[in-house]
Amino acid sequence: MPTLSEVARHAGVTPATVSNVLRNRGRVGAQTRQRVLDAVDALGYRPHLAARALAEGRAPTLALMVSSIANPFYPEFALAVERAARTSGHFVIICNTNEDPQTGRAYLDQIAGTLSEGVLVTNANLDFADLHTTEARGTPVVLCMWERPNEPPGLPCVAVDFRLAGELAGAHLLALGHRRIGAIVGSKASGIHAARYQGFVDALHAAGAPKSPVKHALDTIQGGYDATRALLEADPKLTAIFATNDLPALGAMHAAADLGLHVPDDLSVIGITDIQLARESRPALTTVAVPTVEVAELAVSLLRELIESSYGQAGRGAANVPMRISSPPELVVRASTGAPRPR
Amino acid sequence: MPTLSEVARHAGVTPATVSNVLRNRGRVGAQTRQRVLDAVDALGYRPHLAARALAEGRAPTLALMVSSIANPFYPEFALAVERAARTSGHFVIICNTNEDPQTGRAYLDQIAGTLSEGVLVTNANLDFADLHTTEARGTPVVLCMWERPNEPPGLPCVAVDFRLAGELAGAHLLALGHRRIGAIVGSKASGIHAARYQGFVDALHAAGAPKSPVKHALDTIQGGYDATRALLEADPKLTAIFATNDLPALGAMHAAADLGLHVPDDLSVIGITDIQLARESRPALTTVAVPTVEVAELAVSLLRELIESSYGQAGRGAANVPMRISSPPELVVRASTGAPRPR
Repeated sequence: MPTLSEVARHAGVTPATVSNVLRNRGRVGAQTRQRVLDAVDALGYRPHLAARALAEGRAPTLALMVSSIANPFYPEFALAVERAARTSGHFVIICNTNEDPQTGRAYLDQIAGTLSEGVLVTNANLDFADLHTTEARGTPVVLCMWERPNEPPGLPCVAVDFRLAGELAGAHLLALGHRRIGAIVGSKASGIHAARYQGFVDALHAAGAPKSPVKHALDTIQGGYDATRALLEADPKLTAIFATNDLPALGAMHAAADLGLHVPDDLSVIGITDIQLARESRPALTTVAVPTVEVAELAVSLLRELIESSYGQAGRGAANVPMRISSPPELVVRASTGAPRPR
Repeated sequence: MPTLSEVARHAGVTPATVSNVLRNRGRVGAQTRQRVLDAVDALGYRPHLAARALAEGRAPTLALMVSSIANPFYPEFALAVERAARTSGHFVIICNTNEDPQTGRAYLDQIAGTLSEGVLVTNANLDFADLHTTEARGTPVVLCMWERPNEPPGLPCVAVDFRLAGELAGAHLLALGHRRIGAIVGSKASGIHAARYQGFVDALHAAGAPKSPVKHALDTIQGGYDATRALLEADPKLTAIFATNDLPALGAMHAAADLGLHVPDDLSVIGITDIQLARESRPALTTVAVPTVEVAELAVSLLRELIESSYGQAGRGAANVPMRISSPPELVVRASTGAPRPR
């Protein structure tokens, strides 16, 4: 592979001039510039990204920490992150923590500041202390899907008003006439879906509707399936299921099918997020859409700002931790919700 | 961040000794070794992967080229690749070509040999000439899911007998008594699913069954949905659908539901691959399983061998291009296939 020096020799200039041309830096005359580009073409020279980044004291990738790429939300989000990162010439390394804080710590120790100059975190079940340590070592960290804009996490983040998402879902079911609604929460009571569930409870409370039975479940199709069977066994007169995520909502539709219940006539089902499967299921799933692509772009641009401003190197107060808030979630009505039909 | 020299000073040894301890190289006494490890702990030293790799003339990641990570097969495969790569200390950069050879070429130009010391390719719609160029520059390339073991591609590969997968699917439907079977091929006639379709045709031919109507479709749920509607419109007496991939098979089940056809009583459906959704659909999808995890492990281990043997640097004949063949695909019978019921 040809080196920068060989390109310089071929063009009859100094290596510094070649570097300036390739980086659009310094002053180089048009003729010299053309000579350099011709030499680059002739020799098939490719700039050595990793070497260049190291020479500049930079790492050439962004790390994206996710809890499990087998959950279809993460590939969709990773794709959006990758697209946004490419505009700044960054490659993205996807780090699966498999819901294990120790795996996450190993990734942070090995990648942050060496291979990656910034870290994006999405529900990766990481210890905040580890993230603060990473930040203190000079590698900026951005949380990508913070669920409570009014309770800043103490780390830079992109926040989505997930409480509102739950409220919109609840209000939609109430407006259709549902009063007996089962709730499925895809996390522990104090877990990441707590804000979504709170919004749903707020909607019921505002409408004077009775309290809903609630099941905490795995954030999977199977988790939603099992929770729906349990909820309907305890109260066969439920006319709707609210799930805090699309995967358990899809599981609720599977449970309805196995029980011979028609969706939405016998049972309405609503989720949150709007993953691709929500559009592709039969019936198509009504859900509250989260602006995934916008969140990815906000997260990458915030991380780039922090990298360029050497955030984390200097001391700062908690008040100066940046937070970007995405557009609000929006109700997307499809075929899985309708007016209740008494059974 | 502490440097290797600081660790050496702290431990009272030379930097070379620290390096030897951390890499399990050279001879270092047990006491010295412990002093070094204590110093590493005390200072929080982390080896600089990128710098170390460059110093050794190596790049610290593997690149995985995929056509679109939004297709759920790729995240499942990427997860398996990542797990296999971590055992050799490699990180994986996932490169989405979005089915565009130019995007693929840009990735190869920027990553191969600099950031990544090897490239894994899975149906990324890349130009073979670009892959040969990458290889000729000294960066090994492995094709991960070559579909025709008896027609080597001229590049190192892991091959899966996909013709057999199609034959097993066809034989299963025939054994259940189906004779009017619609076929959906998720690629062009000469495309990557041609071997799977050939196996299906072989099974019909061996059983003396009539030729099947066939539709070439997009390799998506929607593609399978549209193709099934078209096949059933042309011949409403079809009793089964064979699809060359699970996504279009799932679309076939959606089409059946919309047409009021019960799966499998009115219409049996079978796919190929066994992605997670196949297990989670209702009814669960009968499919021919491809050994995804095994293929990922074979591909990573072959790529590591090529990296370590400096494959591609030396001249070689076509006969010496290595190919690994995975275990054969296996029929997985679930709820979407059964004996035909005349309509």
